[in-house]
Amino acid sequence: MKVLAILYDGGDAAINEPRLLGTVENKLGIQDWLAAEGHELVVSSSKEGPDSDFQKHIVDAEVLITTPFHPGYLTRDLIEKAKNLKICITAGVGSDHIDLNAAVDHKIQVLEVSGSNVVSVAEHVVMSILLLVRNFVPAHEMIERGDWKVSDVARNAFDLEGKVVGTIGAGRIGYRVLQRLVPFDCKELLYYDYAPLPEAAAKAVNARRVEDLKEFVSQCDVVTVNCPLHEGTLGLVNSELLASFKKGAWLVNTARGAICDKDAVAEALASGRLAGYAGDVWNVQPAPKEHVWRTMKNPLGGGNGMVPHYSGTTLDAQARYANGAKSILENYLKGTAQEPQNVIVGLGKYETKAYGQR
Amino acid sequence: MKVLAILYDGGDAAINEPRLLGTVENKLGIQDWLAAEGHELVVSSSKEGPDSDFQKHIVDAEVLITTPFHPGYLTRDLIEKAKNLKICITAGVGSDHIDLNAAVDHKIQVLEVSGSNVVSVAEHVVMSILLLVRNFVPAHEMIERGDWKVSDVARNAFDLEGKVVGTIGAGRIGYRVLQRLVPFDCKELLYYDYAPLPEAAAKAVNARRVEDLKEFVSQCDVVTVNCPLHEGTLGLVNSELLASFKKGAWLVNTARGAICDKDAVAEALASGRLAGYAGDVWNVQPAPKEHVWRTMKNPLGGGNGMVPHYSGTTLDAQARYANGAKSILENYLKGTAQEPQNVIVGLGKYETKAYGQR
Repeated sequence: MKVLAILYDGGDAAINEPRLLGTVENKLGIQDWLAAEGHELVVSSSKEGPDSDFQKHIVDAEVLITTPFHPGYLTRDLIEKAKNLKICITAGVGSDHIDLNAAVDHKIQVLEVSGSNVVSVAEHVVMSILLLVRNFVPAHEMIERGDWKVSDVARNAFDLEGKVVGTIGAGRIGYRVLQRLVPFDCKELLYYDYAPLPEAAAKAVNARRVEDLKEFVSQCDVVTVNCPLHEGTLGLVNSELLASFKKGAWLVNTARGAICDKDAVAEALASGRLAGYAGDVWNVQPAPKEHVWRTMKNPLGGGNGMVPHYSGTTLDAQARYANGAKSILENYLKGTAQEPQNVIVGLGKYETKAYGQR
Repeated sequence: MKVLAILYDGGDAAINEPRLLGTVENKLGIQDWLAAEGHELVVSSSKEGPDSDFQKHIVDAEVLITTPFHPGYLTRDLIEKAKNLKICITAGVGSDHIDLNAAVDHKIQVLEVSGSNVVSVAEHVVMSILLLVRNFVPAHEMIERGDWKVSDVARNAFDLEGKVVGTIGAGRIGYRVLQRLVPFDCKELLYYDYAPLPEAAAKAVNARRVEDLKEFVSQCDVVTVNCPLHEGTLGLVNSELLASFKKGAWLVNTARGAICDKDAVAEALASGRLAGYAGDVWNVQPAPKEHVWRTMKNPLGGGNGMVPHYSGTTLDAQARYANGAKSILENYLKGTAQEPQNVIVGLGKYETKAYGQR
């Protein structure tokens, strides 16, 4: 059996830090085990174009392992060439880089390590909200370059206390964000989702559901995106929706880059409609050098909290998703039932509503 | 009556943003009121040396207003020259820039706007903890300069979940930090203070007191300093104490710069004893251009989360402390009793234990 894993390059960092499990060098820690079981493991970061290792090896691999951080984009076209492919495992959470409808059609299972990094991402969201609202980046850059002008920083710094914060999506990550915001004494916590939270869960975080999206964003000082990417959420935050945001709102997106329209966000930030945008997800990954989100700023020269896609790949998260990917593979090899919460696509059908299948 | 206010320069920012109340330009919003009452208000940022406005006007001012962000250092020597001085008002929290023992001796009252920015600072602490633990600054800088190398960032990124966090000082700010950390599922929350928290308060945040300081820091992954600066805390975090920290601990100090030994912290960060240091307070303010804390780094090139002193001077906080300073001044003018929690030094005696008087 051939197992193909598309991971990111770790370089010296991975050689010096064995806990960087999700790298080409450290191979999710499964190489010795697979070899002992008599299986072949091919690991590479090369994923773009017909000469990539991804496209070369996908034709006869039985198992594909990918991550959201350096996604191997498994299109319908590639799925049709992948004659042996039986199971796709996402080491992490979020399998939108796989054409799920095509996987259903070809009876290829898709599983992810549910919960492996939802806390990691939720923490990143809360951090990003705080650093936008409190204007951290311009303040730190001022110190680094040797300046000191408190007023230039303070003029765009606020407290989170007393603000209205809303999440688009109150699932595994969005709900954890709400939980972490409770003691910050926000004016109100809101959520937008296709289904209401169970009553006890909503009460525990004192969150109110708003059913209309435009109405929802018009009430928020801070909007955070915590829903999966699918046909129904692609480009959801576009110029039309941004026009309904409060002037000077802050937007945090650690879900998927393509949920927000790249140019509409950059324009909203430049015009001051948005006071800040932060997150770690991009419409293409790695983001090109000239991607506008790298350096876009608000009219006061701040409001950019972007980072590469790493919020869910802390060393703590890597231990969890490497273990989880191995468990899924073990279950597959032994024919044991998978944990239900990990199954996105079962044999020929969706097993979750999270990707837009209602 | 002459009122002297030493505030920071706001420049264009203050002209364009009237909510920047704590600036020379916007004068805490009290100029018209004081003029109508027939009093003189002198406002300046010039505070260093014998030719400064501070030293020139302190000799006949009856009221001195200062802030912690651009502190006018009122030494015993200056107090002896200030023949008319009756009351010092700190617009904000923290009056260590005033020689409090000398104020007691000369029956000069010292008041601050208790609570005006404790939430602001507590939020900054939680933000700083998250951005150090999650390695935000190197990640953002990587994006700004056009790079993308997830492993270089992830190798030093962790979750706050499961870590031990401790605060030196569990007073108005430290306790609010603990409250905000509760939903982050830390392994344990600890505190070090001269007195135990009331039982119900300790239980509400599930925090354990450690009475020995070395023992306390040796158990913490994250240490945050939230105590006032006084003789007993000056240089408290020195090389001897840092040697007791866990290797790779993170340290956040938004209390006062001089509580931490400047060079000992820089050395601990360079050696990797500390993985990160963040905060907004400096042993001298404004910090000199060449201050080592501006650019110090850990061995992986990160771990610096420094900003100028602004965490307690968000626009939200400025509204509160400007109003609070005005109330204190009104009470003084009318002879009304001051709010007890605002009084640091009353007529000839300390009214608080917070500055080391037990």
